[in-house]
Amino acid sequence: MKNPVYKLIELTGTSDVSMEEAVENAVKRANKTIKDLCWFQVVETRGNIEKGKVHQWQVTIKVGFAVKP
Amino acid sequence: MKNPVYKLIELTGTSDVSMEEAVENAVKRANKTIKDLCWFQVVETRGNIEKGKVHQWQVTIKVGFAVKP
Amino acid sequence: MKNPVYKLIELTGTSDVSMEEAVENAVKRANKTIKDLCWFQVVETRGNIEKGKVHQWQVTIKVGFAVKP
Amino acid sequence: MKNPVYKLIELTGTSDVSMEEAVENAVKRANKTIKDLCWFQVVETRGNIEKGKVHQWQVTIKVGFAVKP
Amino acid sequence: MKNPVYKLIELTGTSDVSMEEAVENAVKRANKTIKDLCWFQVVETRGNIEKGKVHQWQVTIKVGFAVKP
Amino acid sequence: MKNPVYKLIELTGTSDVSMEEAVENAVKRANKTIKDLCWFQVVETRGNIEKGKVHQWQVTIKVGFAVKP
Amino acid sequence: MKNPVYKLIELTGTSDVSMEEAVENAVKRANKTIKDLCWFQVVETRGNIEKGKVHQWQVTIKVGFAVKP
Amino acid sequence: MKNPVYKLIELTGTSDVSMEEAVENAVKRANKTIKDLCWFQVVETRGNIEKGKVHQWQVTIKVGFAVKP
Amino acid sequence: MKNPVYKLIELTGTSDVSMEEAVENAVKRANKTIKDLCWFQVVETRGNIEKGKVHQWQVTIKVGFAVKP
Amino acid sequence: MKNPVYKLIELTGTSDVSMEEAVENAVKRANKTIKDLCWFQVVETRGNIEKGKVHQWQVTIKVGFAVKP
Amino acid sequence: MKNPVYKLIELTGTSDVSMEEAVENAVKRANKTIKDLCWFQVVETRGNIEKGKVHQWQVTIKVGFAVKP
Amino acid sequence: MKNPVYKLIELTGTSDVSMEEAVENAVKRANKTIKDLCWFQVVETRGNIEKGKVHQWQVTIKVGFAVKP
Repeated sequence: MKNPVYKLIELTGTSDVSMEEAVENAVKRANKTIKDLCWFQVVETRGNIEKGKVHQWQVTIKVGFAVKP
Repeated sequence: MKNPVYKLIELTGTSDVSMEEAVENAVKRANKTIKDLCWFQVVETRGNIEKGKVHQWQVTIKVGFAVKP
Repeated sequence: MKNPVYKLIELTGTSDVSMEEAVENAVKRANKTIKDLCWFQVVETRGNIEKGKVHQWQVTIKVGFAVKP
Repeated sequence: MKNPVYKLIELTGTSDVSMEEAVENAVKRANKTIKDLCWFQVVETRGNIEKGKVHQWQVTIKVGFAVKP
Repeated sequence: MKNPVYKLIELTGTSDVSMEEAVENAVKRANKTIKDLCWFQVVETRGNIEKGKVHQWQVTIKVGFAVKP
Repeated sequence: MKNPVYKLIELTGTSDVSMEEAVENAVKRANKTIKDLCWFQVVETRGNIEKGKVHQWQVTIKVGFAVKP
Repeated sequence: MKNPVYKLIELTGTSDVSMEEAVENAVKRANKTIKDLCWFQVVETRGNIEKGKVHQWQVTIKVGFAVKP
Repeated sequence: MKNPVYKLIELTGTSDVSMEEAVENAVKRANKTIKDLCWFQVVETRGNIEKGKVHQWQVTIKVGFAVKP
Repeated sequence: MKNPVYKLIELTGTSDVSMEEAVENAVKRANKTIKDLCWFQVVETRGNIEKGKVHQWQVTIKVGFAVKP
Repeated sequence: MKNPVYKLIELTGTSDVSMEEAVENAVKRANKTIKDLCWFQVVETRGNIEKGKVHQWQVTIKVGFAVKP
Repeated sequence: MKNPVYKLIELTGTSDVSMEEAVENAVKRANKTIKDLCWFQVVETRGNIEKGKVHQWQVTIKVGFAVKP
Repeated sequence: MKNPVYKLIELTGTSDVSMEEAVENAVKRANKTIKDLCWFQVVETRGNIEKGKVHQWQVTIKVGFAVKP
């Protein structure tokens, strides 16, 4: 397709394991309703602490995908 | 729910009264179509001037809410 | 309408001609599904290189439009 | 007028009451010497503390206005 | 005092009323344990949403105060 | 001249044709009242949309020029 | 508690294993002297290289915790 | 190739015609000594003014290319 | 004076000696036409190189001063 | 050596496993041609998505190393 | 020590002589109460103007030091 | 030469005396291998502390120079 247009949406994925899993969870969820996800960019990394340990990794990403012409 | 995923959308609320009301108006409008709004972050504050007075406060916020698993 | 609320979406338009056309293509596409587009802001300008030449201009913009009250 | 040009100046307004009043004071003052002020953007919010209380809100804004052709 | 040195600490004040009150609450609390608070700068403004309304304003500020020589 | 001092002013130029023309229009206007303009830096690129097309390119620049000693 | 106030401190955690462990180490250390740690935000990620390999991950975070009223 | 590594270099291209030509000139020059240029990102746009007109567009870009394994 | 308003202007001072002298030169020049200069903030530090040595320090500052009520 | 000078280069490492491996791959590659790598800083984290999963982690880093006197 | 943790505090040093002395004054003061200061980063450079001259350099730095395990 | 292209490299100069000397040292070193250095921009200022004093100023700069056509 000539001159494709992409849309970017912003999601926060979470995980109690790792930053990577937090991103994967956001991507997996986006894939349920959006086809043809292309790329992501990490916007911010935060997290919750409980009992002196990281309880939840929270990684905010922008996900880009081609919109139909 | 384990490992929730959140979506962030960007809105500009307006008010002729205050920055707070501009935010409230954006949140109130988002609440009409989206359930379970969780948090917001102020992105930018601008405004219109008419006759040498602030005529409209324009506060752009990101609003986050949990998406269904 | 008193105290309108605007939504901003993020799009990457592309063109093999110019930055302006990349923006125009993103705006044109947004106009197919959204009425009353009001303004845009350029977020980032990138591009693809092939055979030592710019092959595709990629301009990411935020597009703002009034949401129904 | 076709292709108007705008100038932006930077002002810090102050108030012992609120951020909004600090902005209003800067706009009011600009209006004394400049006609046709159009818009403002908040650049920074600071303040003075005296006796453990906010004594003065200091909001720095850019104010835009059309210059004569 | 010649060549004073200042320390800056970062606090998040909260309020269910306004951004100003959130800042005031942070300043008031800092004043309990630190003397001679001098100034603050707003770093970030966020908030919690409950039942479609802003439930808590959260303003993060840096507070500066002179340290004893 | 030894150790020249420069002033920077901020302008938003507009054009219905291109980003370049928007910059040129701001520079042309500044040249009416200021001599010896030296350089510019692009600060922000925005625009108006009407009927689903870019109606006005708005490019904000800083323009630098030497001030008389 | 109504209108809690939070303090943020900045720490750099290190690890020879992963970014996550570097964060965990900073949080674990903070927990020794501060109760009720609530959240963290990643500020910067750096590291040392020795013999052509990453020898130490260095992740700077802000850690937030409620201060006593 | 599995897990390619890319290098980014920073160049300022110039043109007396347009921003796009300034980028093209930088890319064209990089292509003389580097094979397989992949992409670019615009970092900054500046320019020289002479006789009240833009005399030279100066666009700084980062150019990325795969390095040999 | 209650609720003073301040204006900020942007200047680039130069010096062949040091960054401090570049700032001093900009302040000295501003003082010729503006009374009651209050403070400055460094915005950017650049310089010219000639024959492999720093030939000119260029420090861009914002200078703030109270405007008459 | 007195007053060492360091050079920083920018690389994007990739991995289908983790952010850490992407950084390691960039460092490993740099080590092939540059001796005495000292440190790195993460500049940006992006990635490719294929079939709804993260297919490639792309971490851009700056790598610093001492240059010979 | 394996996996040391560092704390960063923010200080504003002042001097009527130079930026370097302002930094030195902040470091010297921090050294009175904190052992094993390791590094600093300049965050912001400002200053006071009196009688058209720089009266006080104000340099804000972050100072890092290892915390006890 | 029409439409020159410039390359920017990033260097960290060090000095035990001043920020200016740190910059000079980086420029001097670059001049050994690169001809026609044109300008520099300060990117970051850091330093090492030993025995409660600044032991080494570390100034990271970008240095620009014209590349051969």
